[in-house]
Amino acid sequence: MRTQVVIIGAGPAGLLLSHLLGLDGIDSVLVERQTAEYVQARIRAGILEAGTVELLRRVGLGDRLDVEGMEHRGIHLQWPGNRHHIDFADLIGRSVTVYGQTEVTKDLMAAREKAGRPAHYSAADVAVHDVTGKPYVTFVDSDGTPRRIDADVVVGCDGFHGPSRASIPDPKVWERTYPFAWLGVLADVAPSTDELIYAWHPDGFAMHSMRSPRVSRFYLQVTPDEDIARWSDDRIWTALSERLGVDGWTLETGPITEKSVLPMRSFVATPMRHGNLYLAGDAAHIVPPTGAKGLNLAVADVSLLAAALTASLRGNDELADAYSETALRRVWRCTHFSWWMTSMLHRHGDDFDAQLQLAQLHRTVTSTAAMTELAHNYAGLPL
Amino acid sequence: MRTQVVIIGAGPAGLLLSHLLGLDGIDSVLVERQTAEYVQARIRAGILEAGTVELLRRVGLGDRLDVEGMEHRGIHLQWPGNRHHIDFADLIGRSVTVYGQTEVTKDLMAAREKAGRPAHYSAADVAVHDVTGKPYVTFVDSDGTPRRIDADVVVGCDGFHGPSRASIPDPKVWERTYPFAWLGVLADVAPSTDELIYAWHPDGFAMHSMRSPRVSRFYLQVTPDEDIARWSDDRIWTALSERLGVDGWTLETGPITEKSVLPMRSFVATPMRHGNLYLAGDAAHIVPPTGAKGLNLAVADVSLLAAALTASLRGNDELADAYSETALRRVWRCTHFSWWMTSMLHRHGDDFDAQLQLAQLHRTVTSTAAMTELAHNYAGLPL
Repeated sequence: MRTQVVIIGAGPAGLLLSHLLGLDGIDSVLVERQTAEYVQARIRAGILEAGTVELLRRVGLGDRLDVEGMEHRGIHLQWPGNRHHIDFADLIGRSVTVYGQTEVTKDLMAAREKAGRPAHYSAADVAVHDVTGKPYVTFVDSDGTPRRIDADVVVGCDGFHGPSRASIPDPKVWERTYPFAWLGVLADVAPSTDELIYAWHPDGFAMHSMRSPRVSRFYLQVTPDEDIARWSDDRIWTALSERLGVDGWTLETGPITEKSVLPMRSFVATPMRHGNLYLAGDAAHIVPPTGAKGLNLAVADVSLLAAALTASLRGNDELADAYSETALRRVWRCTHFSWWMTSMLHRHGDDFDAQLQLAQLHRTVTSTAAMTELAHNYAGLPL
Repeated sequence: MRTQVVIIGAGPAGLLLSHLLGLDGIDSVLVERQTAEYVQARIRAGILEAGTVELLRRVGLGDRLDVEGMEHRGIHLQWPGNRHHIDFADLIGRSVTVYGQTEVTKDLMAAREKAGRPAHYSAADVAVHDVTGKPYVTFVDSDGTPRRIDADVVVGCDGFHGPSRASIPDPKVWERTYPFAWLGVLADVAPSTDELIYAWHPDGFAMHSMRSPRVSRFYLQVTPDEDIARWSDDRIWTALSERLGVDGWTLETGPITEKSVLPMRSFVATPMRHGNLYLAGDAAHIVPPTGAKGLNLAVADVSLLAAALTASLRGNDELADAYSETALRRVWRCTHFSWWMTSMLHRHGDDFDAQLQLAQLHRTVTSTAAMTELAHNYAGLPL
């Protein structure tokens, strides 16, 4: 079998790339290790940048997003005794939209089926070959049949653990692990806040997010090796009430439907292209979740890459040659911003670090320039 | 002997306080451990914030400053291959002025002599007594005569090593030492730049500052235990040319007249008041020199304190009661800013830290909001 672009990984990055290429008349085939059900159920990010929303609308993926997405003008930034709203819409005329990654994936899957673009789910032993010559991908399909797909280009959208990155010889890797993790909680209760609350607290960071008008999402800073069994529902609600508490405000509680520990990591591998292999999204870079950059950064990669591949397959290599360097400028911006949000909000280090955090928080809610810089980074730089 | 305010330490903070109190009709006596010549010769900071310049002018200390001070619109921020000018005057309508601490001290000493305000230099065994009751200060004067001065209030402007802070029981102390120091160099050569250059370099931070149109000041990041004997003039010029180098620019060299290693430290002790004892400047807080906040922060303390003491000695304690808390807001802002500038510009940590620094630098010279925030902090928040 032959196609123009083989895309390894049918998460939101791979699906969106296939969608964008399809609109440009470029054929692609998706190869995914997991089942469609597994991919769709994966709970990840929930905040879309203004540019991500604009892109999804522009390419026909905005219908359900416009109905079900919750537009947020900004965020609440909090420390004990203080809760401040930072209004991105007022500051820079841009906002963000709460719309879960699962919903984006669902829309992309529906669009793929409607367009009849081929995808192989439950593909085993996926391997990338000859990326500097005539590349091809081999795998064993869901029926147990060995397959080979030849292509002009292979794109790795296969995440941090996927096989694609290994085909880049001697990548330069930057990595940071953080001395804390998030305990993520999903609860069947209406959010107790209109917009997200990011809270610094002596006991550790806490966050109040949401998935829908009836489902709330919470995070608590815990240690990376935290035993989730030690976190009863009672203990979770007590910690959330304590860390998120301000006078005159009550945290509503409800049945907890899911809890899990999320590791925190920064990771960048370069280059993002080797011969006819390109990487996009988590395959090339991971950010800690504070600031909600992960999915948006993958969308930015893919947006850039779709234009570059379309031009390249039509004979103009300029964008493709610049892809790695161009993409990495945004990657490093978001890596820095995510590190900054993470470092400002999580307890770590000593009492001096805590005072630096409080001084930074105080400044961020009182200086228009500092608020504006946060707004630009959070609502997202233009694609 | 009796006065209203005894000021321990006749550096710029103590001298300015005595000057401001004198203008308000409050009597004070300065007690200084060193000789006047020693105090005057101490080479320290050289950049005055806009608010510091305005204050000095307003209180009759601006004549020589206006003639000899060099107004700078902003700074140059640099990393290999890039030098960017950040124009504070354009961004926020404020600028900074290069005018050495030695010059400020000289002007303050002249004003003190002209006004005939008493000062005891070369005072030995300075001790503060009964600060929660009727305070007094004892010392042995330059003739070897034991002295006692009774006062309403004692102010410690006696620096990090002075005796005043020890009279505050159980102060809360925050401290940070940095894994690097500055090798400071004074050279008889016209500056090779119009305004200061702050340079990030893989070999370490470098800075090109100046004292006058004929005297340049340079700094090189070195290790805290650096043996200055290992830094020949040749090695210094080679390192400066390398770290400060950009295409099409030449560093002029000349005779080096002084070199010394400056430690880097952040330090805050609270409260800044105990009973009738008040602290101002380095006695209560130290910042690393990156960002030039030390002298300006002392001026801000003293400006606040002069108004507070004047009101208090006339029966209104409101400002005096708020002094520690009010002063500390600015102290923590400047502590954070100095830490931020220091952390962004000095090599430390791993390659990931270096990439974070470069991402931050790139953003700081391209985002108007980020530039504006730097400008506000560097040119100084209003007094």
